[in-house]
Amino acid sequence: LYLAADNVQVMDMDVERALNHLDPGPLQDLTLRCEEAGADYIDVNPGPLTGRGKEKMTFLVEAIQAVSSLPLILDTANTEAMAAGLDACKKPPILNGFSMEPAKLKRVLPLARDYNCRVIGFLLMPDGRVPSNADERLSVAVDLFEAFSKAGLPPRNLIIDPVLVPVMWENGQHQAMEVLKTLRMLPDLLGFPATTMVGLSNLTWGRGRGERKALLEQTYLPMLAASGLDMVLMNMLHAGTVAVARTINALTGRRVFTLEEIP
Amino acid sequence: LYLAADNVQVMDMDVERALNHLDPGPLQDLTLRCEEAGADYIDVNPGPLTGRGKEKMTFLVEAIQAVSSLPLILDTANTEAMAAGLDACKKPPILNGFSMEPAKLKRVLPLARDYNCRVIGFLLMPDGRVPSNADERLSVAVDLFEAFSKAGLPPRNLIIDPVLVPVMWENGQHQAMEVLKTLRMLPDLLGFPATTMVGLSNLTWGRGRGERKALLEQTYLPMLAASGLDMVLMNMLHAGTVAVARTINALTGRRVFTLEEIP
Repeated sequence: LYLAADNVQVMDMDVERALNHLDPGPLQDLTLRCEEAGADYIDVNPGPLTGRGKEKMTFLVEAIQAVSSLPLILDTANTEAMAAGLDACKKPPILNGFSMEPAKLKRVLPLARDYNCRVIGFLLMPDGRVPSNADERLSVAVDLFEAFSKAGLPPRNLIIDPVLVPVMWENGQHQAMEVLKTLRMLPDLLGFPATTMVGLSNLTWGRGRGERKALLEQTYLPMLAASGLDMVLMNMLHAGTVAVARTINALTGRRVFTLEEIP
Repeated sequence: LYLAADNVQVMDMDVERALNHLDPGPLQDLTLRCEEAGADYIDVNPGPLTGRGKEKMTFLVEAIQAVSSLPLILDTANTEAMAAGLDACKKPPILNGFSMEPAKLKRVLPLARDYNCRVIGFLLMPDGRVPSNADERLSVAVDLFEAFSKAGLPPRNLIIDPVLVPVMWENGQHQAMEVLKTLRMLPDLLGFPATTMVGLSNLTWGRGRGERKALLEQTYLPMLAASGLDMVLMNMLHAGTVAVARTINALTGRRVFTLEEIP
C-alpha cells in the first residue's frame, strides 16, 4: 500500500494562508512532517484556483520540491494551472484527475499523454453523479478505460479511484461495501491489474467525534487493502491510521516494512 | 461478524484454578465480562482433560449456563468429555472440532450427527501439519467436506477454520495472506457459502509487545472480514479489537450494530 498525503490542501487554513501570501515556509514544514510520517507521495491541492492559478501551482510545486524529493500528485480542476505545475515538476507527477465528464476527458487526458504521466480516473457518471453500486462503477470503469486508451495512453498510466462516499450518507455503509466489491472485480473486468486508489478521508466527511472517525478509517483501510487497493490518499498526521497502514504493509509483504518497524 | 470469546480457557491461570477446585465464581465473572463486551458465543476450553474429564466439562457447562444464555463452543480433544458437555448443554453448542486426522473424523463427526449440532473443521493435513499455502488448504477443504457429508451431516452444520499461524513464524506473513485467499475462494470451491471462523490470537502467539500485538489483531481482523470471515474466536477483553469488530459490523451491515454504537 502506497501512502499519499492529502495534507497540502487549501481546506487547511494554514495552507490557504501560505498560498495566498506565496509563503513557502508553512507548506515546507507540512511536507516534511508528511514525509517523516512515511508518505510516498504528496498530493498538492490548491483548490479551484480561480485567480493566479498558474502562478500559485508553480509556487506550490517549487516550494515542496525545494525540501522534498517525493513525487507529487497535481490535484486541481484548473488544467492551465495543472500544465504549469507539470512544467515545474522535476519528476513526473500523477495528475488528479479525470472522469467521464466530457470537459475532463478533453482537457486532462491530452496533458497526461503529452507529459507521459499517470492520471487518476474517478468512477463517476458522466454527469458527475456518484454511482450507486458496484455494477454502475464497473460499467463506468469499462468506459473510462476505453476513453483512456483511445487518447493514446498506456494501461499502466491509469490509476482508478472507485469513489468513496461519506459513511454518514443515507447509503454510506452500503457504498463502502460496494467499493470493496469494485476493487475485487476490477482486475478481471479490465483484464489487467489496474492500479487503484481512494481518498480515505471521504469516508468520515461530516460531523462526528474524532475517535469514531479514526476507528472507521483504521477499520476500513485494511478492508480496502484486502480487496486489492494499491494506494491511499490520507491524512498523514493521523498517527493511528498511519500505524495501521504500515502494519498492512508488514502483513502483506508488498512493501519493505518489516514487523519490527511497526510502532 | 460473530464474536466468540476465547477467554474461558485453561491457559488462563484463574480459569485453571477454578476448574481444579470446581469453583464456578471466577468462571461466571469471566463469562459475564465477555458477554458485556459483546460476545455472541463462549468457547469453553478446559484443555486435554486427562483426569475427571467428564466431570470437569459438565461442571464448566453448568457453571456458565447458570449466568449466561449465550451458546457455547465445546473445545476439547477429549470426546468423552465433549459428549458429557453436550448432555449438559441447554441449547445446541458448536463442537470444536475435527480435522482430517483419522481419530477426529471417527469420534467427533458421529457426535455432531447424533446431537445435530455444528462442528468446526480445521484445514489441517491428515498428519496434523499446517498446510503451507492456500492451495493445500483448499485441497484439504474438499476432503474435509466430503468426509463431513459422508458422515451424514448437512452443509450448514460445517464451520471451516482455515488455520492461522503466528505471524512471527518464518513464513507467518505469507501464511496470513494465504488464509485470506482461502477465505475468498472457499465458497466457489465448495459450491455453497460455508461458514468460516478463525482463532485470532494465533496470529500474535509468542513474545512481543502488547501494543504491537493489538495493532496486528486490529489490522488483520478487518482484512479477514473483507475476505468473507463469518466468526472470530478472540479475546473479548481486548477492548481495541472488540471496537474494531463492532466497526466492521457497522460498516458491513451484517449485524444489528449501527454507527452510533461504535465506541
